[in-house]
Amino acid sequence: MKIGIFDSGVGGLTVYKVIKRRFPACDFVYFADTAHLPYGDKSEKTIVRFSRNIAGFLVENKADLIVCACNTASSVAVSRIERELPVPIFGVIESAVEDAVSVAQKIAVIGTKLTIKSGSYEREIKKRGKGISVFSLATPLFVPLIEEGWCDTPVCDKVIKIYLDEIKKWKPEALILACTHYPVIKNKISKFLGGKTKMFDSGSIVKTLKKFVKPCVGGKGKSSFFVSDDPDNFRKIAKKVMNMKIEKVALCTKFL
Amino acid sequence: MKIGIFDSGVGGLTVYKVIKRRFPACDFVYFADTAHLPYGDKSEKTIVRFSRNIAGFLVENKADLIVCACNTASSVAVSRIERELPVPIFGVIESAVEDAVSVAQKIAVIGTKLTIKSGSYEREIKKRGKGISVFSLATPLFVPLIEEGWCDTPVCDKVIKIYLDEIKKWKPEALILACTHYPVIKNKISKFLGGKTKMFDSGSIVKTLKKFVKPCVGGKGKSSFFVSDDPDNFRKIAKKVMNMKIEKVALCTKFL
Repeated sequence: MKIGIFDSGVGGLTVYKVIKRRFPACDFVYFADTAHLPYGDKSEKTIVRFSRNIAGFLVENKADLIVCACNTASSVAVSRIERELPVPIFGVIESAVEDAVSVAQKIAVIGTKLTIKSGSYEREIKKRGKGISVFSLATPLFVPLIEEGWCDTPVCDKVIKIYLDEIKKWKPEALILACTHYPVIKNKISKFLGGKTKMFDSGSIVKTLKKFVKPCVGGKGKSSFFVSDDPDNFRKIAKKVMNMKIEKVALCTKFL
Repeated sequence: MKIGIFDSGVGGLTVYKVIKRRFPACDFVYFADTAHLPYGDKSEKTIVRFSRNIAGFLVENKADLIVCACNTASSVAVSRIERELPVPIFGVIESAVEDAVSVAQKIAVIGTKLTIKSGSYEREIKKRGKGISVFSLATPLFVPLIEEGWCDTPVCDKVIKIYLDEIKKWKPEALILACTHYPVIKNKISKFLGGKTKMFDSGSIVKTLKKFVKPCVGGKGKSSFFVSDDPDNFRKIAKKVMNMKIEKVALCTKFL
């Protein structure tokens, strides 16, 4: 069985790693749309267009199911394109929400501008429990800070404080990290919030996949990586930010 | 006479404003490639491709000359596409360098990753004087900080300090702001450096244009704005970051 995963950049590798660890014998094809990143500040229509192209590419590359690891695209594109595809596609929202609502009544959500503006998390949470209160906040500086490798600087602490002060006062029982980069600063955020808030992220998708992924007995466990721009840079950032060594990354410019 | 200007986003509006002020009777057509922004982290080849498409669009829209307001595209694309175009195209590098070398022997340059990596400023400076020393530095967090509207927060001061401490110690006589967003924090940077460093930016292009732009007597002084994604967001950021009210922005998705 082959699992297709896509994201705008390296962020989705946090999701890839979690799925790969759970299903090591599966094959993987990962597409990072680095020519168009970031997705979080762009329009819904444009993100749907990008996602449709990439999902088609993954199907051509024999993916048996697709995981949209990008929260922004999960928020605005997955429900629009799923009917067009010959294989199932999963966003990362529902599973994280599922996990969070099972333990919390006060849930905070942080993500990109478009993810938050779309209201996708809020909708999914409200669907599952009327009494649950939600505090959503766009925190767009986290991604560039993480990509610049500044997680351990006082600037990062300061940005966390400015963004999350209100959320901290609100005392959430759970916080959903609705952007695949954020797990990189999960511990810092958790510490800032006082350590009692339960943290959830896109890795929750693994539970959902269990129902769909076949055991892959005899699979080869091979992964291939594609980008729409600059394979070398992708490899460098994957190493620097995600601490992941990727041998080979192929360039695919067919959607430019 | 109609002047075409392009940039990846709102940054080039700093250049537009300077040119418009000097040639108020000219017509303008501005293209912001917001579906592909930012340019600074992408590859040379991709930026050449984007720039070629946009320059063609400006020619179709009757531009008599084109200003590439984006430093990244000026660094890697202008020299590649100028021969293909039926009208002159100007990058913003040479004129800023011209101004800086006329008063300084120690010049610092800050810009995006790709601008700095390309060595374009260093090359132009060295061409004009062998004894001139150059200190180049990529400062990629400035753009997201400015776009988030955080210029007046302590975070901005902190980021300026971290990036520019070494440059300050080096005591430059001039600093070139090699990114069109940076003029927004020009005063802060100047103050941090101690106030004696002369500051230059892409606005220097006006001097070069004087030789080419006809007086536009009887011109209409009309400006039209195009983006490749989300006109409303462009208008909002233009207001918030550049303090500029733009009535009408048209969407052009022909290069997506």
